Order: sequence, then C-alpha cells, then structure tokens
Amino acid sequence: MGEMICCKYRISATSLEAAQALARGVAVEQTVEVPEGLITPTIERDSVGQVRSVEKLDDDRTAYLAQIDYHAEQAAGQLPQLLNLIYGNSSINPAIKLLDCQFPESVLARFAGPRYGVEGLRKMLGVYDRPLVCGVLKPRGRSDDAFAGMVEEFALGGGDLIKDDHNLVHDSFDAFTNRVNKCQAAAEAVSDVTGRGCLYLPYVSASLEELPRFLEFALECGVRGILIGPTVMGLEVVRWVAAQYPLFVMSHPTLTGPMYLNVTNGMQMSFYMGTLMRLLGVDASIFTTFGGRFHLTRAACVETAECLRQPMGALRTSWATPAGGMKFERIGELCDAYGADTILLVGGALHEKRASLEVGTRDFMDAVGEHFSERLETPKL
Amino acid sequence: MGEMICCKYRISATSLEAAQALARGVAVEQTVEVPEGLITPTIERDSVGQVRSVEKLDDDRTAYLAQIDYHAEQAAGQLPQLLNLIYGNSSINPAIKLLDCQFPESVLARFAGPRYGVEGLRKMLGVYDRPLVCGVLKPRGRSDDAFAGMVEEFALGGGDLIKDDHNLVHDSFDAFTNRVNKCQAAAEAVSDVTGRGCLYLPYVSASLEELPRFLEFALECGVRGILIGPTVMGLEVVRWVAAQYPLFVMSHPTLTGPMYLNVTNGMQMSFYMGTLMRLLGVDASIFTTFGGRFHLTRAACVETAECLRQPMGALRTSWATPAGGMKFERIGELCDAYGADTILLVGGALHEKRASLEVGTRDFMDAVGEHFSERLETPKL
Repeated sequence: MGEMICCKYRISATSLEAAQALARGVAVEQTVEVPEGLITPTIERDSVGQVRSVEKLDDDRTAYLAQIDYHAEQAAGQLPQLLNLIYGNSSINPAIKLLDCQFPESVLARFAGPRYGVEGLRKMLGVYDRPLVCGVLKPRGRSDDAFAGMVEEFALGGGDLIKDDHNLVHDSFDAFTNRVNKCQAAAEAVSDVTGRGCLYLPYVSASLEELPRFLEFALECGVRGILIGPTVMGLEVVRWVAAQYPLFVMSHPTLTGPMYLNVTNGMQMSFYMGTLMRLLGVDASIFTTFGGRFHLTRAACVETAECLRQPMGALRTSWATPAGGMKFERIGELCDAYGADTILLVGGALHEKRASLEVGTRDFMDAVGEHFSERLETPKL
Repeated sequence: MGEMICCKYRISATSLEAAQALARGVAVEQTVEVPEGLITPTIERDSVGQVRSVEKLDDDRTAYLAQIDYHAEQAAGQLPQLLNLIYGNSSINPAIKLLDCQFPESVLARFAGPRYGVEGLRKMLGVYDRPLVCGVLKPRGRSDDAFAGMVEEFALGGGDLIKDDHNLVHDSFDAFTNRVNKCQAAAEAVSDVTGRGCLYLPYVSASLEELPRFLEFALECGVRGILIGPTVMGLEVVRWVAAQYPLFVMSHPTLTGPMYLNVTNGMQMSFYMGTLMRLLGVDASIFTTFGGRFHLTRAACVETAECLRQPMGALRTSWATPAGGMKFERIGELCDAYGADTILLVGGALHEKRASLEVGTRDFMDAVGEHFSERLETPKL
C-alpha cells in the first residue's frame, strides 16, 4: 500500500456508535460517494478512505475525534483535488469539521511551498533575531503622493515592510502603476540613504486575464513582494502566482472567516490559515490575532503560527503575521505569544498619539527592541 | 452620486444601538478600515459604505437586518474585489452574515454570466416544459469501459445529461483523455441512433498550468459541457473558464458548506450558490437539496433556485440543480418545489431495484413525465 494522507475530523455526535457511523460516512463520501451496497472489495481496498480511529474529544460531551486516511495518489498531485479529497462534500455536513491533515512526502513534493519564507526574507532585509514590523498604507481615498510620503516616513522610522491596504483596488491599471511607481521609488530612496531595506508590498487584485500584467509591472518596478487574498483570488491562483513569479507572497485574510469560525463545521483555523497557506506557497500569512477587534482565541492563533513553522517536508517555514488591533501596549504580549519569527502588522497605532508616522514607527521599533536583541547584516535586496 | 451595490447583512446583537454600531463598523471595515478619527469628510463621502437601515429581524430576538450600500466603482469591475468589498474582513466577525446583494447595471455589465443558461441548454437538447435529468458516473474504481457502458445505457434510457462523479480525478492527463474519449463517443453513438441528445459532462480538476489542456481536449472531443468545482478551483478561475471556453458549465458544491451553513456568519446559501454562481457564469448550479442526506431547509433550497432564475440585468438564467439524495418517491415533491427549469441530479437511485441502468433511467424519465407535458424539438448539438 502506498502513502496515506492522514486527516483528523471533529464529529458532532451523541454516542460513539453514531460517531463511528458518521466517520465511515465521511470515508465513503470523500472518495466514492455511493451507497454501501455498490462498494466492491476492490473499490473498498483501493479507493475508499480508511477510518483509523474514533474517540471522544476530551473537552466536549458531544464531539468525537476521527482519524481517516486516504490514498495519497487520490490527491492527484494538485491543490483543487486535494481540497476536494480531504473535505469536499463533507463540508456540507454541519456535524463534520476538518481539524488537521498530515501530508506524506509524495504529496508535499508536488508543492514548491514558500519561495522565500522566514530565512529568505531575513536575508533580503539583513535583520535577525527579532520580529519584523509591517506598516499599512491607508485609508483608500488618499493620494498616491500621500501614500508615497507614508512609505518614506515609515522607512525612515526604521520599519521593515509596508503594504497596501487591501481596499486599494481600482478599475484601472494606471491607478495601480502610479501608486506602485511612487511607493516603490519612495522605499528605494530611503534605502539608498540609510543602507537598510524596507520592502513595499502592493496589494494585487485583478481578473485572471489581467493578473499577469499587474505582477509583471510590479517586478519591472523593482517590487520584491506582494499582498494578495487567496480566498478571494482562489487558492489555486495564489499557488500559481507563488510558483511562477519571484515575489515574496504575503496573504491577506479577506473572506476567510467562514472557513474556520464555526465550531462544528469548516476547518480548524490553524489548518486553513497555517498549513494550507504554507502549502500553496505563502511566505507570510496574515491572520487576525486574539485580543484585537476580531474574536479569536490565543490558542487558535498560536497554533496557526506553529503550523506555519513546524517541519513540513522540504517546505520552507512561513512568517506568522498577526494583525487586526496592534497597539503599543500589546507588543510584549504578542512578542511572548508569537516569538521572533513573526511579522507584526500595525496600522492606525503608528499614527495615534505620535507627532508623525516616522516618530510613531521609530517608537514602535524601539518598543519591539526592548524584547529582542536584533542582529543586522547587509541587506540583499 | 454613482450607482450603489446594496448589501443586506444579518447582525447578531442584543439591542438596536449595538446593531447600529456593528453596521457602521461593517461600512468602515469593508471600505477604508481605519479608526473613525482618520475618516475625513471627503473619504466619508467618496469611500465609506453607507448604512441605509438597521431593523429587527422578525424571527429572531438577537438578530438585526442592516442594509449597507457601497459605491459600485469600488468593486473595480472584477470578482475578487467584489467579494472583498461586500464581505472580506467582516467575514471574520462571527456576528456578521451576508444575506444578499443587489448589483447595479454597471457592475452586472462587467460579467458575461451564463453562456447558455436555461434557454441555451433547452435549444441544445430540444427539450422543453419539463425538468432535465442528469445521471452520474461512479464510483471511482470502475473502468472507463464500464463508465462508457453507463453513458450508453443512460442515454438509451432517455436521460438528458450524464456527468462524472467529482472524485474521478487522477494524476494523469491520459486518464482524463481516455475516459472522456470513451464516454463522449458512447453518448454520440446513442444520439446517432435515437436522434435525441444526451450530453456527457466530464469533471475537470487540474492545476492552473494544466487546466487549458484539459478544456481544449474536451472541446476537441466534441464535449459540450463540463462539471467543475468553483470553491476548490477558485471562483475567479471558473469565471475565466466560463468566459473563455464555449462550454456549458455545471458547478459542483464541493467545499461550499462552510460558506453558508452557519446561521450567524458566512453568506446566505441562496446568495452563494445562486446569485454568485450565476454571476461568475455557471449555467447549472448543483446544490444539495432539502430532504436528502444533507440537512438543508426547503426554504433555503427554493430561494437558491429563485436566485438562479430571477431577473439580474442582462444575465441569462441558470439551472437549479438539486442533488444529494434523489429517489423515485421524491420526484413529485422536488418537481413541485423547483418547477420545470430544473436539472434533477440522480445517482444511485437509477440502479437500485431496477434490472439495468437503462430500465432505471426510463422508469425515472416516465416518473418525471407524469408531472409535466414535455415538448420536443430537434436537438441542436
């Protein structure tokens, strides 16, 4: 027998027997989707998922943990079929949630994963042993010159990366090229003066017909990375982008909530925002953090960070990028929770109560510096 | 002021004031995502979403209905940004559910919508005034010759369309071409004898790099339509497929559940499986029906069918395609619920208790015929 994909599901049921029946139902639904009577011994052996175990979940009287294994070749070496295999039809069952999958080498080998990841970005920027800090260009409605000014101030303040807000999308290629030209030039101008790097990451959202034009323009401009939303663009599209273009890919969590907010259905947040994002080649996965304006638990967020970093075949590690409510007074708490290989995404906090974005950024970098001893090398931009 | 996109949200809140605050939060989050203090009058006027109303939902003590309008140009004429605009970040709020959107002409005009839709498929098959019946090739593990035999029997029995099961995906282009060659030839051979049409729809799942090869092969073979999974392939990918290739597009619901199963978060099923699928050009949207092995309400399913058919700019109407537990004894109930412009998807029921698939199909067509008076024309395949 070949390699197996090992999936863990949460099953809502009021008895072990009911949970076992549901687990068998998933194993059949996900692979052959026929009544039991049509499953021959050969089909059972070669195609049907195999229920390895069903046991009580410690913390819940009406939930069971089922492990179901699938033949690795049924993923067909492609992301859409992998998603279909591990959760496709069972996603429509309110009692079934996908918690985690272990992918064997034969599956992982079909995915390039992050092109840069943690080490690649550290080399690019020459910054080690502390979290990186990423600013945000917003709000929509400001001029491109104002945005370029923000890039300049943020870079002068010592920030590491600055990204577009994901609302900076216009029905015009020129709107994109004008903003990217100005903001990238601003970032490079500061680097020339300071000798440090600050990456500008434009947000890319376009139809599939237009997408290559946007990415090629960014590369021509000297842009080293982009922000993109896998759940609105399509996960397979972002995998393709990451594989085809030499760009650092930061993923935005837009539209992701329904995939992991439900206790009894959907996927575990750490699997969707961690494991899957990394599998499709995301170098830095933004997720809304606990304690911010979105309501997520510390455990779910820390587990997501772990999935971005733990061993996963030959795939590089990705940056945990917590967001959604960063404040000066929370820096210590978040650094403790997420550790050094983290990108801290910070928006409004750099402006509030500070004389300028440059001062705010410098103060923020100093505050981060109180928790880590950074080591600098020459950037390799 | 230009045209507006009018969105309706369900907001979980325990008072009108709390609901109003949450509605304003959505209007800001979806457009500019900054603290209130950074919103200038110009940005408020030109960019921020506008809360039109917040009122109690009749049937729920802790739920409110909010209508929020967005400037149509903020959708930027593209699907990924449209999704981002109407629900992106708010999708991560467990108290916000997107119920419905009304798109103005300027937005709808940017989408081709279904290429064939209800009328196009009726012309192709020359069948009017009754639901169409679609069979399924399964289970995975059978030979291509066996599948071709099933196509032949189903077509001889008078069935209208027969599709691949969505698990028929292999890590080989040849596996696809062999199956498609044989099944398409079987369908055409019966048409040559009977003078009626039976469309074979192969399931297409491939990486973005490989996808054009699969579609081009299908077209070269004479295939007139495909089955594809928008939520695993990416909605934008399927929009592109529908726009680029002259194929009837049937969508499979794999991985869709988390988008609409949650009462307080996600999207209304009718919006995701109806309005959105039609917007991206799906000719027939498969959804799991009430009363089957998935647990959906009759109201949600009928509303989905309505969204596929109601006026929507110049977009053609799509086929409601209920599935997931079709049985002979339910034909009347489903025909009553969904009406004539429906594709009834039927899997195992054609085999059970019948001498052959051909007999089962003929019996099923006769049973449908008891509820409608079909009108036949010459197929235009």
